[in-house]
Amino acid sequence: MINKEEHFKKVVSHAKEYGFIFGSSEIYDGLNAVYDYAQNGVLLKNNIREYWWKSMVQMHQNIVGLDAAILMHPTTWKASGHVDAFNDPLIDNKDSKKRYRADVLVEDYAEKLHQKALKEIEKAKKRFGDAFDEAQFVETNERVIRYRTQQKEIVQRLAKSLEKEDLADVKALIEELEIADPLTGSKNWTDVKQFNLMFGTKLGASADKATDLYLRPETAQGIFVNFLNVQKTGRMKIPFGIAQTGKAFRNEIVARQFIFRMREFEQMEMQYFVRPGDELKWYEYWKEVRYNWHLSLGLGKENYRFHDHEKLAHYANAATDIEFDFPFGFKELEGIHSRTDFDLKAHEEFSGKKLQFFDPELNKSYVPYVIETSIGLDRMFLAVFSRALEEETLEDGSTRLVLKIPAVIAPTKAAVLPLIKKDGLPEIAEKIIEELQWDFQVSYDEKDAIGKRYRRQDAIGTPFCITVDHDTKTDNKVTIRHRDSMNQERVAIENLSEIIGKQVAIKNWLK
Amino acid sequence: MINKEEHFKKVVSHAKEYGFIFGSSEIYDGLNAVYDYAQNGVLLKNNIREYWWKSMVQMHQNIVGLDAAILMHPTTWKASGHVDAFNDPLIDNKDSKKRYRADVLVEDYAEKLHQKALKEIEKAKKRFGDAFDEAQFVETNERVIRYRTQQKEIVQRLAKSLEKEDLADVKALIEELEIADPLTGSKNWTDVKQFNLMFGTKLGASADKATDLYLRPETAQGIFVNFLNVQKTGRMKIPFGIAQTGKAFRNEIVARQFIFRMREFEQMEMQYFVRPGDELKWYEYWKEVRYNWHLSLGLGKENYRFHDHEKLAHYANAATDIEFDFPFGFKELEGIHSRTDFDLKAHEEFSGKKLQFFDPELNKSYVPYVIETSIGLDRMFLAVFSRALEEETLEDGSTRLVLKIPAVIAPTKAAVLPLIKKDGLPEIAEKIIEELQWDFQVSYDEKDAIGKRYRRQDAIGTPFCITVDHDTKTDNKVTIRHRDSMNQERVAIENLSEIIGKQVAIKNWLK
Repeated sequence: MINKEEHFKKVVSHAKEYGFIFGSSEIYDGLNAVYDYAQNGVLLKNNIREYWWKSMVQMHQNIVGLDAAILMHPTTWKASGHVDAFNDPLIDNKDSKKRYRADVLVEDYAEKLHQKALKEIEKAKKRFGDAFDEAQFVETNERVIRYRTQQKEIVQRLAKSLEKEDLADVKALIEELEIADPLTGSKNWTDVKQFNLMFGTKLGASADKATDLYLRPETAQGIFVNFLNVQKTGRMKIPFGIAQTGKAFRNEIVARQFIFRMREFEQMEMQYFVRPGDELKWYEYWKEVRYNWHLSLGLGKENYRFHDHEKLAHYANAATDIEFDFPFGFKELEGIHSRTDFDLKAHEEFSGKKLQFFDPELNKSYVPYVIETSIGLDRMFLAVFSRALEEETLEDGSTRLVLKIPAVIAPTKAAVLPLIKKDGLPEIAEKIIEELQWDFQVSYDEKDAIGKRYRRQDAIGTPFCITVDHDTKTDNKVTIRHRDSMNQERVAIENLSEIIGKQVAIKNWLK
Repeated sequence: MINKEEHFKKVVSHAKEYGFIFGSSEIYDGLNAVYDYAQNGVLLKNNIREYWWKSMVQMHQNIVGLDAAILMHPTTWKASGHVDAFNDPLIDNKDSKKRYRADVLVEDYAEKLHQKALKEIEKAKKRFGDAFDEAQFVETNERVIRYRTQQKEIVQRLAKSLEKEDLADVKALIEELEIADPLTGSKNWTDVKQFNLMFGTKLGASADKATDLYLRPETAQGIFVNFLNVQKTGRMKIPFGIAQTGKAFRNEIVARQFIFRMREFEQMEMQYFVRPGDELKWYEYWKEVRYNWHLSLGLGKENYRFHDHEKLAHYANAATDIEFDFPFGFKELEGIHSRTDFDLKAHEEFSGKKLQFFDPELNKSYVPYVIETSIGLDRMFLAVFSRALEEETLEDGSTRLVLKIPAVIAPTKAAVLPLIKKDGLPEIAEKIIEELQWDFQVSYDEKDAIGKRYRRQDAIGTPFCITVDHDTKTDNKVTIRHRDSMNQERVAIENLSEIIGKQVAIKNWLK
């Protein structure tokens, strides 16, 4: 297994080089933390979205879809709490004019102390060799103790200050620790201020004042404000779900880790409306269903874990993350939250409209409780892509770069390759494509030796290569070469659609 | 055929009542000219997008996809001309504080003259009866001549002033005509000013100045700035296309006609890169291909017409619209434009980067010419929906409301209906659904008499109703009832997937 940091670098460069992800507006030197999906990336992204949608909407008779607009009435964000509380604590350096997240400056400082302690331990390990007792060293070494104690104190004080919204103390902490601007070394800081993460814009329809709008910071509220309209026109009975995919925007100051945290990103969310009191039963249900959905792709059970929230958001009475082992460690991939009736009640209050369901079995009306499953489409893309990228050493000692993307979501399902560029083989290949392209995304490649073409398809994750050779002209058969096993089999052209169809069918993946 | 205006009202109310389209944030009294797609609408919208995508990307080996972000580097919009020239002339009323499009105020005034002339003609028609000669009347009646002359003069002067950007004269015209605020009657106007239609927002990543960004007003530029990256990493050879679907935003002051002109809308675009000099050949080619795509849905050839642009945009050397007969008349549904090398050359100039293709056959590099096909997804939705909605009189004299949406893009393909709610019929229906839902969107309905359920499915455009009755228990057959013909046929359960599959397969629609 190669070094994680190295692997992450390969992921980023492979995504660019093989047409999966480009930096946005690269010819203008890019727009930080915004990315474009290129010709292979858009296919993978669309396939992941479809795999989610079919499993959630098409396969559940009591879940329907929705596609709410990005622009919403601004009161929505008052009701949801985003106008007042969706903030990051920021600090500006007066000399460099650079802006930072104050909490991240402090956390980075604490992280350095952690690294220093680790370095001491490493040094000692080398010095003492086999005789080294790490636990004993950590307990007795003065420097390690000092670093660790200080680190702990800083982290605790920061958490306390942020919880009390004591921003003056966050600044005091930065000054006490003599934290400098990482770029210039200046310690000339402004006060710490809360900065709202929503992108604002103006609707210029009236002369006296423009209406202030926001680009939605989450898709969930689009479901909540439409809850009653969907329930009534769709004649839905509780429990039922509303699912939607779509863009959301956050004006992140520190946006890192490639497409993991972007300013513009896409969510895949489902809000499941249940009877008050039943929510924890359904929370457990959706935890299991969503976990199994991830496992269905076969990327390896060891790459997933639950991380239950100890400290709950103000709207939740239970919450967990499904974390994935990204190239930079285990991080949130999907959240499953029991959101109580917080959102619907808030919209009732701010809109003055009842958002209740009449339950014929209980013979009464109530505001439903909500279980949310929310997954970042871009994060899912990164999870699949980073785990699929492998550098394999083959039997003959050579290496190959291969993207082992699950066939059901692979960008291109099959490449059709005439062994040589003449003798009528390209024409047979064209005919095969004309038939197969009705069913799947396929491609054609006639350039270079066949081995080189296999490698090219490996690198973009095409699960099947179909080679047309001279025998094809007489036996109407072609060779299917499988990406992962590199096994080859000879099959009749007329069976191609069915053979490949089975291996890429959602039915044969989703359990 | 019912009155068009009536029909349009029915379209709007049907869309709301049957879960296709809701006003955005309705509980907060909505956001003007922004709409949400509801549970049935999102399925139809997704199916239209997929029908377009498969026909353009999957079925063309030389067209690839892209999914560029909504946020782009702001210089993009300098290069494209949108910062300087994407304006509407606006005027504010000082008393009412209302804002209007100055050109629309004048056009509305001219339209009133037109209506007055029509009224005179109508009156005379009644007075003279059969003896009425309209042509002669129009030529000789003083009032009609005066109205028509004045109307023509106003329209010409407005066009001239706008072309010269003489906004003072537009205001002078409004004052001379004594045009009043339609809401309050006040004639106390400000000067006319150009108002940019792009939504602005700010990227708050730096302390001294925030970066001004725009929500893209069109998706096309996302393709142009990525042109070279896609060409190189995808090893594309000219001619080739890049296709994408996605949201765009325009801060329209006058946004009318339901989802026809929205502030937030979705485009489906393809830019086809060709050799300079070949562009008009490809322009003709794509006119035909796109026209046939529309016809493939079978909504009726008489509903489409070409409208060639006489006055071309600054970037085009040929342009046509495919117009559709909407409930408010023939309007643009899709544009096919020969954009020359305008955009790529502008991006070369503003970015300082070469955006050229090396053509191995010609052995030289050049900036390609571009043919664009651009269709509004929401307009396509409205075209299909408004044309599909019919109120039919049946043989027995009763009427039914039916949405004859082409089966290939129908939201739900089949509803499974147990004849009665007992005797094990619901269980058989459930089993059928469990199997079919792997392949299509299906639904279940057991409430009310079977006839009422058929009507309910008619109203949301479900092409097939599958009824489970008592005989099903012994013969394993069900009745398929067809939406449009209302014919019924008895088929084996095991053949359902194949029978329906064939009728909704893209292969059997797209020619």
